[in-house]
Amino acid sequence: MNNRLPMGAEDRFVDRLRALLPADDAIRIGPGDDAAVVAAFGREMIATTDLLVEGVDFLPGADLELLGRRAVSVNLSDAAAMGARPRFFLLSIVLPAERGEDAALAICRGAIARGAEFGASLAGGDLSRGPSIVLSVALWGSLDQEPVTRSGGRPGDALYLTGYPGRAAAGLRIASSGAARSDLGEGDRELLDAYLDPEPRVALSLALASAGIPRAAIDVSDGLGIDAGRLARASEARAVLDRGRIPIAPALAAWARREGADALDCALGGGDDYELLFAAAEEAEGEISRLAAKLPVARIGRLEEGRGAVLRDSAGERAIDTLGYDHFEAQP
Amino acid sequence: MNNRLPMGAEDRFVDRLRALLPADDAIRIGPGDDAAVVAAFGREMIATTDLLVEGVDFLPGADLELLGRRAVSVNLSDAAAMGARPRFFLLSIVLPAERGEDAALAICRGAIARGAEFGASLAGGDLSRGPSIVLSVALWGSLDQEPVTRSGGRPGDALYLTGYPGRAAAGLRIASSGAARSDLGEGDRELLDAYLDPEPRVALSLALASAGIPRAAIDVSDGLGIDAGRLARASEARAVLDRGRIPIAPALAAWARREGADALDCALGGGDDYELLFAAAEEAEGEISRLAAKLPVARIGRLEEGRGAVLRDSAGERAIDTLGYDHFEAQP
Repeated sequence: MNNRLPMGAEDRFVDRLRALLPADDAIRIGPGDDAAVVAAFGREMIATTDLLVEGVDFLPGADLELLGRRAVSVNLSDAAAMGARPRFFLLSIVLPAERGEDAALAICRGAIARGAEFGASLAGGDLSRGPSIVLSVALWGSLDQEPVTRSGGRPGDALYLTGYPGRAAAGLRIASSGAARSDLGEGDRELLDAYLDPEPRVALSLALASAGIPRAAIDVSDGLGIDAGRLARASEARAVLDRGRIPIAPALAAWARREGADALDCALGGGDDYELLFAAAEEAEGEISRLAAKLPVARIGRLEEGRGAVLRDSAGERAIDTLGYDHFEAQP
Repeated sequence: MNNRLPMGAEDRFVDRLRALLPADDAIRIGPGDDAAVVAAFGREMIATTDLLVEGVDFLPGADLELLGRRAVSVNLSDAAAMGARPRFFLLSIVLPAERGEDAALAICRGAIARGAEFGASLAGGDLSRGPSIVLSVALWGSLDQEPVTRSGGRPGDALYLTGYPGRAAAGLRIASSGAARSDLGEGDRELLDAYLDPEPRVALSLALASAGIPRAAIDVSDGLGIDAGRLARASEARAVLDRGRIPIAPALAAWARREGADALDCALGGGDDYELLFAAAEEAEGEISRLAAKLPVARIGRLEEGRGAVLRDSAGERAIDTLGYDHFEAQP
């Protein structure tokens, strides 16, 4: 579903959209970051929304409860990128006419349970018929400190990444093959689960934001390359990732060897990871590791003067800000 | 698109959904009203979401800017039903792969302009591909007083309705016939516009709420009959509409005569009206008319002891709480 395509159409769209917006002082951060930040109700809040579309963002025949869970997870991940505390959400469901009340309830059950794990309650929603399943979640959260944006990074900052990118992309390939989960080995199950049930990095993000560590952050949803490019662009800097530091999960390496795929390509352009990429001082590494506890966080590169995003190794550099999913240019 | 079907599946769904929800003191009003009311950010806010799905909620080939406008209008209407002041919205768009950036921007342009008329700014959104167009708006707003719910009515209250129900249903029939707007007479244009570009009753709703007049309210989106039934059910009362008082627009009467349709049926079961139905004291009628200024507001009946919703005339009563659109039982 994710594709390697020239970056930029989606970002260009956001620029054109911003030009249409009338001024509103209550909108502290509008379109173009992981979430909006508004100030109109006493305290600042973040708001974000993410769609899941059948055949584009998930495979036909997906388990509905898991789908509801994932729809909330991807929004929780956006809240995490802002350093926000998830609070409540609305869930809208488009279902084909032949699917009844029980299907809608299964989706809700997964969404409610997932929200509850992170302090976010379902407050309402909408239902409609349609040719295929679409889930739309809008999620609100509070801020205990200033929001973490994409734009606060500066040359010299180190870049950190939670977890293992590319597992979800391999998991999607496994899911697409139609293999039964029970027939999979442990490693492939790990990859499948990374795709079907991503883990939003809410707890770490709150701990980091509370300690004032991240200068900029983005959740890696469309691909590490394209999203590193977005963070760099917003921060008016250049993201330089160190090839030797990109964390490759053993399960991904094993799968790639078996399938003749390139694990690094999956890690850079796979998408659907929902890991947290953030810029912080190099000296913060020890504190970050301490706060992350068992969650692996790798220092994968740094911001430099310039533009774009590149992968650097002993042989030189290659551009990676085209590696990932662009909603305007991708053909599912 | 709207259909006459036994009431209840959607309301039953909401009951089952509520049973799944863990307690959260911050959710003052959860699923089942026109909007949620949440207290988590200092001051209370309302939040609501409404989907528009191609082929179900609008016709294929619809003007995109008008569609963006309508997607915001139907959410503004929900805010109005709660007596809330619209403030921000998120807009998510699913577009077929062949539609590009300009199509998405046209939708945004209509949405932004409509929101601006009522003080609601676009704060963010999402984009995805899909087989057909889906628009999802999530809108939130502030409350200057206690929210107006569906449940505050009581036997003895009069029922009031803004505008003319049924025009949108006739407008949908006209739109479905493919007639060019420029070929239509003035009356048919009025009906078409009522369907394509409904007017949310935000200003009147704020004036009424500020004066403490409505005891309960609902926006008439699925049909006057079914929505009167919902208000009555929430208020644990019986809605009795007076046949002679249902306001029939002259344009609707003329269209119905010409087409051999029943104008009263359109008014009771048409849907897509986005008029405000509210319960208030009978003595408030003068004050309501004064606040409504040029907007017609009719006293169409009252709440009595009992259950359900009926239309009463000299011949007797007939149940009308099945007249309208149920999202679970309707076949578009």
